[in-house]
Amino acid sequence: MASIRHSSSAEGAGPARSEADTPSSHVMRFGLDRPLELDSGQSIAPLQIAYQTYGTLNADRSNAILVCHALTGDQHVASVNPVTGKGGWWETVVGPGKPIDTNRFFVICSNVIGGCMGSSGPSDIDPSDGKPYGLNFPVVTIRDMVRAQKRLVDHLGIARLLAVVGGSMGGMQTLQWAASYPDCVGAIVPIACAARHSAQNIAFHEVGRQAIMADPDWHGGEYQLFNTKPSKGLAVARMAAHITYVSEMALQRKFGRNLQNREAKSFQFSPDFQIESYLHHQGASFVDRFDANSYLYITRAMDYFDLAEEHGGQLSDVFRVNAARFCIVSFSSDWLFPPAENKRIAHALNAVAAQVSFVEIKSDKGHDAFLLDEPEMFATVRGFINHAALELT
Amino acid sequence: MASIRHSSSAEGAGPARSEADTPSSHVMRFGLDRPLELDSGQSIAPLQIAYQTYGTLNADRSNAILVCHALTGDQHVASVNPVTGKGGWWETVVGPGKPIDTNRFFVICSNVIGGCMGSSGPSDIDPSDGKPYGLNFPVVTIRDMVRAQKRLVDHLGIARLLAVVGGSMGGMQTLQWAASYPDCVGAIVPIACAARHSAQNIAFHEVGRQAIMADPDWHGGEYQLFNTKPSKGLAVARMAAHITYVSEMALQRKFGRNLQNREAKSFQFSPDFQIESYLHHQGASFVDRFDANSYLYITRAMDYFDLAEEHGGQLSDVFRVNAARFCIVSFSSDWLFPPAENKRIAHALNAVAAQVSFVEIKSDKGHDAFLLDEPEMFATVRGFINHAALELT
Repeated sequence: MASIRHSSSAEGAGPARSEADTPSSHVMRFGLDRPLELDSGQSIAPLQIAYQTYGTLNADRSNAILVCHALTGDQHVASVNPVTGKGGWWETVVGPGKPIDTNRFFVICSNVIGGCMGSSGPSDIDPSDGKPYGLNFPVVTIRDMVRAQKRLVDHLGIARLLAVVGGSMGGMQTLQWAASYPDCVGAIVPIACAARHSAQNIAFHEVGRQAIMADPDWHGGEYQLFNTKPSKGLAVARMAAHITYVSEMALQRKFGRNLQNREAKSFQFSPDFQIESYLHHQGASFVDRFDANSYLYITRAMDYFDLAEEHGGQLSDVFRVNAARFCIVSFSSDWLFPPAENKRIAHALNAVAAQVSFVEIKSDKGHDAFLLDEPEMFATVRGFINHAALELT
Repeated sequence: MASIRHSSSAEGAGPARSEADTPSSHVMRFGLDRPLELDSGQSIAPLQIAYQTYGTLNADRSNAILVCHALTGDQHVASVNPVTGKGGWWETVVGPGKPIDTNRFFVICSNVIGGCMGSSGPSDIDPSDGKPYGLNFPVVTIRDMVRAQKRLVDHLGIARLLAVVGGSMGGMQTLQWAASYPDCVGAIVPIACAARHSAQNIAFHEVGRQAIMADPDWHGGEYQLFNTKPSKGLAVARMAAHITYVSEMALQRKFGRNLQNREAKSFQFSPDFQIESYLHHQGASFVDRFDANSYLYITRAMDYFDLAEEHGGQLSDVFRVNAARFCIVSFSSDWLFPPAENKRIAHALNAVAAQVSFVEIKSDKGHDAFLLDEPEMFATVRGFINHAALELT
């Protein structure tokens, strides 16, 4: 029997979860009798999914849009993040009157499994031994993340999503929705993503993982037992990753070779340049809000992502049975998921005569453009979603 | 009085230096009375420069070519490296009958100051307290490196070099020669470099430095006293840097998403992908041959490099008094020092009507192309050097 509870706060059984325990996120739980089967052959039970919703589900449940978050994102797409106290990560896109208008649409965003904002992840207590999972938490894939989302969507009584929208790893999830549940989504908006992680993508992630695992405070992933955090390693991982989120041009424009609060070079190893201070800040603020093991798990999930691989290597085969309409959005200066990779998705869709729009937005902001003030992206998402709503609801 | 000794092995006084103590490198030493004054205002004394020569200096001393090495290179440009047992790093370019033909030219290559292959660096013994310098070694600049090289060239009785040639940081040094000693060089060959380190370049270096300094075995730079090595941190630094040396295309072509010695993903955190194993290998082999503090010092020198800055911000002013001829070589897929940065040097030279050739070689091998089998680079260097020799000797 399923043991599903839906509460606006996470009172009752289950491990103490800093975020799940706040009333700021809804939490869905499945008991030991409803394990989530994973690509690895392992399973997660109990399963917990923390999520936020915005707007109102209409009577025929046809106005639901799932927003999928990126590697270090969370469910707080358009509401204050209780950990950082800052606004949601996509308030420019989701909200009343925004491109995804919560006056019209019911928006759902859930923390991915493997994460650290309330959904099941490596910092959970393993019921088999009462200790935090650490590396005993099963390795998850993008498909597994989407499986968990599907459970949530089912639980909310929504048979078909109007749209699934996401950037970066969120974009991977939108594609996975198209592949796994083609009949359950009307429109797919993959932004600044790829249908597979490239060798260079994997390489950068492996550098980050090695930085974390090299930190003696990581303790083989059991740092909770030692009351430590591999903060230095995680900060290095974040710094390396952050460089890939920004274009060379944007860094040059924003920081160039400007010195930080000094007139001349120090001839020391403290940060002389603004770009160094900026990176340090990125590292330091990240370790305050993110869990190192979750970083390992989620980067691994991205590395494992290769949508074509599941379908004999032919990407177009993924979309053969798909009736959804797609809007692929890329940014010209994104070198993490370059426009060519986004275009590859569009070509695969074209090959099976799917309904697809492809937009390459001129921007010098690099990969992170999808999180920033990009009026052309806003207009694209607004137009596409509104048109889809017109046709599909 | 100068206390200069020139010996083919480093017998006698001075700290035990694994490389300098082998007979495989010449060593030039200056005593406490001949300090090398540095940009920082500090100085190095005693000063030691380890170097190699190939070919024979002709009677009028007009056939000398200085080759400058890159960040992790050394003086063994065309002879077996005594630490790794491998051949020289540029045997394809320097040697009998090679593009820089040692049957005709006298080639000099010295280890940069700050390095770890016999020239003065942070692992030296500080004469003031008898302990290894560590971070008490003064921060050096590219200009300081070139100052040390100039001493060596003077010591060898060479008033004017036929040419200075180098790639990456070596290319920066060639440009610095043009700026610091315009009357002492006939021809300059900067390859795959820039006249300044960009914000992105600095960012990647800072990630590497933070990885090293986060390693508890670094001990604030005093690891020699603790008989440790910050190998994990240095390996992470190398892995991150290595990604920048290779183009995305080359990584994809060479490794793609191929698994390493396994049929299927492991769903673990050990290396599944070939690219991960490759990076691990790069990290592991690097820590066996390179000193972590030297890595800090040399990356800092590169970050500090901005040739125009020394001349009021106008790059062309650097070259105003220059009678040398230049051959700027860049590689189309080099994203560490992109062709645009190389072209910027050519434009600055054009602005003062200097003699300059600019070559952009089509290659998908990225920055490391300058170290690899690139027939067009070989032909360019050979042709340019031979022509310069014809006109200048």
